[in-house]
Amino acid sequence: MSTAGSLYVIGLGPGDPLMLTEQAKIALRQSQVVIGYQGYFTGVQDLVQDKECIALPLTQETQRAQVAADRALQGDAVCVISSGDAGIYGMASLVLEVLEQRTACASALPCPDVVVVPGISAVNACASLLGAPIAHDFAVISLSDLLTPWELIEKRIQAAAEADFITVLLNPKSMRRHWQYSRAQDIFAQHRAPETPVGLVRNAYRSDQSVTTTTVAQMTEPPVDMLTTVIIGNSQTRYWQSRMVTPRGYPIAETP
Amino acid sequence: MSTAGSLYVIGLGPGDPLMLTEQAKIALRQSQVVIGYQGYFTGVQDLVQDKECIALPLTQETQRAQVAADRALQGDAVCVISSGDAGIYGMASLVLEVLEQRTACASALPCPDVVVVPGISAVNACASLLGAPIAHDFAVISLSDLLTPWELIEKRIQAAAEADFITVLLNPKSMRRHWQYSRAQDIFAQHRAPETPVGLVRNAYRSDQSVTTTTVAQMTEPPVDMLTTVIIGNSQTRYWQSRMVTPRGYPIAETP
Repeated sequence: MSTAGSLYVIGLGPGDPLMLTEQAKIALRQSQVVIGYQGYFTGVQDLVQDKECIALPLTQETQRAQVAADRALQGDAVCVISSGDAGIYGMASLVLEVLEQRTACASALPCPDVVVVPGISAVNACASLLGAPIAHDFAVISLSDLLTPWELIEKRIQAAAEADFITVLLNPKSMRRHWQYSRAQDIFAQHRAPETPVGLVRNAYRSDQSVTTTTVAQMTEPPVDMLTTVIIGNSQTRYWQSRMVTPRGYPIAETP
Repeated sequence: MSTAGSLYVIGLGPGDPLMLTEQAKIALRQSQVVIGYQGYFTGVQDLVQDKECIALPLTQETQRAQVAADRALQGDAVCVISSGDAGIYGMASLVLEVLEQRTACASALPCPDVVVVPGISAVNACASLLGAPIAHDFAVISLSDLLTPWELIEKRIQAAAEADFITVLLNPKSMRRHWQYSRAQDIFAQHRAPETPVGLVRNAYRSDQSVTTTTVAQMTEPPVDMLTTVIIGNSQTRYWQSRMVTPRGYPIAETP
């Protein structure tokens, strides 16, 4: 074979088909093979019904990337679907890592053209439901220590808290991981006022969406799990009518 | 008046209409009045031709929010358009801040329902064009010291560099602001290897898009301006075929 296929890695956004971009729909339409976690196909059924759909379970992220690379190297037009933004903790880097390993790409043989199509990430989606918490410098940290040592995660939490970053915590707890989220609270409590707004969003823009507003002092009281996104305000963030508002810093004249 | 209108604050994404979500299009269609910077209207002409369009120049961000609040309080269905994501350094917080000041909202009088519609931000768009740089924890920092003291910005750069965050620098230089970007390089040079990948993207997904790949050692050599987004890899980020790849950390078997 001397011709390689194409490989789109696309972000579907939060799951609601209304939050797909036209660019993502075009990429799906142009593909012959669509690969993703089973749960991702429900929002795009209309777009993939004439495609070969390969659904692999959660935890098989590497396998999804392997199958995608294989099929694209065989000449197929392949699309890997990811929730949120495929480039933000998504499948894009895994697909590139796998392709890098393939001899066809390491040598001068044709390698599929890889196009990453951005999507609405959990950060964008959850922020919009809380008001306007991310109007200034921010840090995003996953609390999952499956692939990252906890010491590094804690160092990042400490850095974000000290430097007054609005901070987004992803994957705050899991079935087997309990104390890390409380540890994050301890660190923020040392650097932010107790009443600093904290927003918790689970399943943004899905039928079972939940949005909870709390504070640094009380952020460990509502239940959180691996699907919860936590947004901790900076020192300027306040609540207005249950919306988190982080000022940009523009002077705003009082109404005459 | 006892009825208040509605107020959508929507993110248009990078400017290419293909990168609008259906949700944003619906919000535009349902509006009577559309308010934004003049340059934002070109990508959505078809959607706003039957609307009252109010274009205000750059720097008049507060005025745009004021007009939007006034019209929504008068009962109109209003849409404020922002580039990127309206919630990420966008118009959403300014609109909420202005509404907060309006007596109609401070008292029990009806206040317009505010809906923030997320979009593809510069972070998402620029990352996708560089490969997969943001596959792990990251920080986003604007170098503009117009509304934020430089000391705080530098503290955040230091924190992000020390804690090995992938770091997105927005607004690295302006007509009157020159040395801050070099100072950022100095700080990263103390904490990252000189060959650490750095990507520079200007006008993502526009006809005059430019994508440049460089390193921490050389990141100040290509021209940058207020429209350039700079993405600095973490200690694990590498180049593969001119793509920035930050590994997720999954073990990837060699091809048999």
